[in-house]
Amino acid sequence: MKQPIDFYFDFTSPYGFIASRRIEALAAKHGRTVNWHPMLLGAVFKLEGVQPPVSVPIKGEYLKRDFERSARFHGVAYRTPSPFPVATVAACRAYYWLAQKEPAKAVALAKALYGAYFEKGTDISDVENVVKIGASMGCDAGELRAALGDQAVKDKTRAEVDAAVARGVCGSPYVVIDDEPFWGVDRFDQMERWLATGGF
Amino acid sequence: MKQPIDFYFDFTSPYGFIASRRIEALAAKHGRTVNWHPMLLGAVFKLEGVQPPVSVPIKGEYLKRDFERSARFHGVAYRTPSPFPVATVAACRAYYWLAQKEPAKAVALAKALYGAYFEKGTDISDVENVVKIGASMGCDAGELRAALGDQAVKDKTRAEVDAAVARGVCGSPYVVIDDEPFWGVDRFDQMERWLATGGF
Repeated sequence: MKQPIDFYFDFTSPYGFIASRRIEALAAKHGRTVNWHPMLLGAVFKLEGVQPPVSVPIKGEYLKRDFERSARFHGVAYRTPSPFPVATVAACRAYYWLAQKEPAKAVALAKALYGAYFEKGTDISDVENVVKIGASMGCDAGELRAALGDQAVKDKTRAEVDAAVARGVCGSPYVVIDDEPFWGVDRFDQMERWLATGGF
Repeated sequence: MKQPIDFYFDFTSPYGFIASRRIEALAAKHGRTVNWHPMLLGAVFKLEGVQPPVSVPIKGEYLKRDFERSARFHGVAYRTPSPFPVATVAACRAYYWLAQKEPAKAVALAKALYGAYFEKGTDISDVENVVKIGASMGCDAGELRAALGDQAVKDKTRAEVDAAVARGVCGSPYVVIDDEPFWGVDRFDQMERWLATGGF
């Protein structure tokens, strides 16, 4: 029985978004499933003592160009949103709240949140936008709104982010295949070879 | 007449080394030549206010693993040297000194310096090692040793590094094809498509 692929990402990460549109097809091709793990890159940047890459002089300008070109390269519809980047703690909490009840629907919510932000430009740092997106998928708006402020949901989200950091997640996307870590949508070619050959 | 490809790199960059072993074949396949531009990443890190990536917690550990796996993926012989990273100002000066007299031989020197460091583990921050590598290629050892301390060579090197930074070079390798910048050996797939199609 092949292990699922672990897919870590931040909802404000363009490269994570591109990966989210390709990861399931890659996994399925090699008889795998995907475990989705939204996390908060801010926790990583804090530990590393660094700023978000797009805020870094020189690098930031390059990255904005590369986000768009990489999306075209991978055949993924993408528009750099404004504001960008945004806080994604509400999106993350919505995911983990739903994942405890309906895991498959939580993955669909993750895709909807990513699409809302990177295709439609909806500000997903806004709690009410997260609630609307959840409601459009059949979640109860009041229940979801309450969950986003619920201490147990906050604790669950924090525990998931801590677990990601403890595992070495240092960026988005970050994919683990049988304990081998791959950081970046630009590692899809290496992931493909790894899955096909069992390692190289 | 197709423009040459501009190839920027730091001699202590593993990804730059891997790129150096592949860039000419890629260019030749598309009827291009390569202009080699060694530079000093330290100048970029200083402007960005960041530490070298391998010194950053969490990320550093990942990168060491990724250097070796990426080299295997690209079919390039590679060994993480010790010490790593090292100062590469002597190597850079040797290159620009020779490039003003014998450009083709300077490219051969760049390849030899990279090979000495990443294949044989020779510490190329050591001036005498740079002199030895130059001498093994037929350079006059005394002349090269003197050049490494010569103010005109220092100024030339500084001017080249400044020009790279002014152009937006934010990492190694950094390749410019007809004004389109590509950062990382993991952009070879995008470069290949860009060269084949004229842009996407």
